[in-house]
Amino acid sequence: MRKITNIAELRAALDSYRAAGKTLGLVPTMGYLHEGHISLVRRSVSENDATVVSIFVNPTQFRPEEDLDSYPRDLDRDLGLLSEVGADVVFCPCPDSMYATDYSTYVDEYKLAAGLCGASRPGHFRGVCTVVLKLFNLTGPQRAYFGEKDYQQLQVIRRMVRDLDVPVDIVSCPIVREADGVAMSSRNVYLSPGERVSAQRLSQGLRMAQEAVAQGERSCSALTGMVRHYLEADPGVVIDYVEIKDPNTLDDVVSLDGEVRMLLAARVGKTRLIDNALLIPKEVL
Amino acid sequence: MRKITNIAELRAALDSYRAAGKTLGLVPTMGYLHEGHISLVRRSVSENDATVVSIFVNPTQFRPEEDLDSYPRDLDRDLGLLSEVGADVVFCPCPDSMYATDYSTYVDEYKLAAGLCGASRPGHFRGVCTVVLKLFNLTGPQRAYFGEKDYQQLQVIRRMVRDLDVPVDIVSCPIVREADGVAMSSRNVYLSPGERVSAQRLSQGLRMAQEAVAQGERSCSALTGMVRHYLEADPGVVIDYVEIKDPNTLDDVVSLDGEVRMLLAARVGKTRLIDNALLIPKEVL
Repeated sequence: MRKITNIAELRAALDSYRAAGKTLGLVPTMGYLHEGHISLVRRSVSENDATVVSIFVNPTQFRPEEDLDSYPRDLDRDLGLLSEVGADVVFCPCPDSMYATDYSTYVDEYKLAAGLCGASRPGHFRGVCTVVLKLFNLTGPQRAYFGEKDYQQLQVIRRMVRDLDVPVDIVSCPIVREADGVAMSSRNVYLSPGERVSAQRLSQGLRMAQEAVAQGERSCSALTGMVRHYLEADPGVVIDYVEIKDPNTLDDVVSLDGEVRMLLAARVGKTRLIDNALLIPKEVL
Repeated sequence: MRKITNIAELRAALDSYRAAGKTLGLVPTMGYLHEGHISLVRRSVSENDATVVSIFVNPTQFRPEEDLDSYPRDLDRDLGLLSEVGADVVFCPCPDSMYATDYSTYVDEYKLAAGLCGASRPGHFRGVCTVVLKLFNLTGPQRAYFGEKDYQQLQVIRRMVRDLDVPVDIVSCPIVREADGVAMSSRNVYLSPGERVSAQRLSQGLRMAQEAVAQGERSCSALTGMVRHYLEADPGVVIDYVEIKDPNTLDDVVSLDGEVRMLLAARVGKTRLIDNALLIPKEVL
């Protein structure tokens, strides 16, 4: 496994894979890797001749008041994990090499990125789209891997790739959860033991909605109302949103005529957590 | 020479060039080709194993009040010219295949695109950046060719390519002029014989500025003032801007300490014309 920080060196290394006719998978990450990331890397290793993992805490997707400086980092541990699982190249650029002092170009997706986290974090998806497109251009992969935990991000990137005709297949992998049901996230490290118990309400709320759907509930407002009520019952949970959306367009949905996504965001202490799940009425199964 | 309208067919054709190890040059155009375009195609043919020319009147770079519908088109003539000069593939997509009805992703460059034509045509460079990036992603060229007549466009694209790490070399070619000095443009066809005489003032104004620099003039305000005065002397010319800028950053310049660009835009009748020229103080030569 090669660790590369320099862009010219990265291009040269990947050009040599391409010249040898090898397929390339990319797993973009912000590091502090957990089993969710590792599942993406394993999938890429199984589907491509070579796998590049990028580790870059991208400043442009954080708002000034957010946790850019405190975002957890542990590069040595990350490199050990990636080496074990068979990554070929780890790209860890410094922010200066990604953004010149007179940097001035951004990519925006204006429909899927508008609501949900896009509403509470203006500019976040501009940062995400821009850095992901840069990473695609830097690495030129056949396939790129994203987790469903960041479901809106996944769909925004799919739309960007479609709209800009980027020649890459976007592959998504299911959410990986801790034993207590909490979706794996690098930010879980921020949670105190008490907050950790509150955090469980997000996945519990989603399971509750899935059970209600299995019992016949088809009204989106009834489902979101029920989950809101359950989350609000814990004073340690401050809801940002509880919504049900079309899984592809992220358009609003009124009743369950087909598969939909329930998406949640809440603050637990100072930590912003997100989670989501598919809701499938049994007549669709 | 192959004419291709379908995106999947284009990708397949270009993949076969790439698989054969051939280098690819791209010349993006809006068609109605003149000797300026042809100079780009000749240069690409001489520098690459294969040359793709795109012909696409891109709707997203026109403002609602602009000349999208009346923009001149003559595909048969264009194909004849391109075949003569040795293009390999001509890509002429329909607008529907470039922009889905729910299209929602745009690329913006915010510094170089802000002034000059960007000030009079808000959204124009968003359309240009977006379609050019799409064409890069659709064709994957080693080199792409742009004319210096659209000098701001050239520099905005260079900046976009740098910022987004697009793996393409941008090659620029000098302005090609008619015998009367008017910079070649598809829009020249709009000019009446009388307007054509007025249009000559743009290139004459630029030459006048170059001569003044040769005589020792170093003040940008004196130079732009002189050219404004000359353009305004013809009531058929309505100035949009007369400016002198740093040739790379398009920042304002006060006096000629090095090479600068003088850029003009003016309306002659209903036709908006642009032109530009390098001003080089002799101590730099």
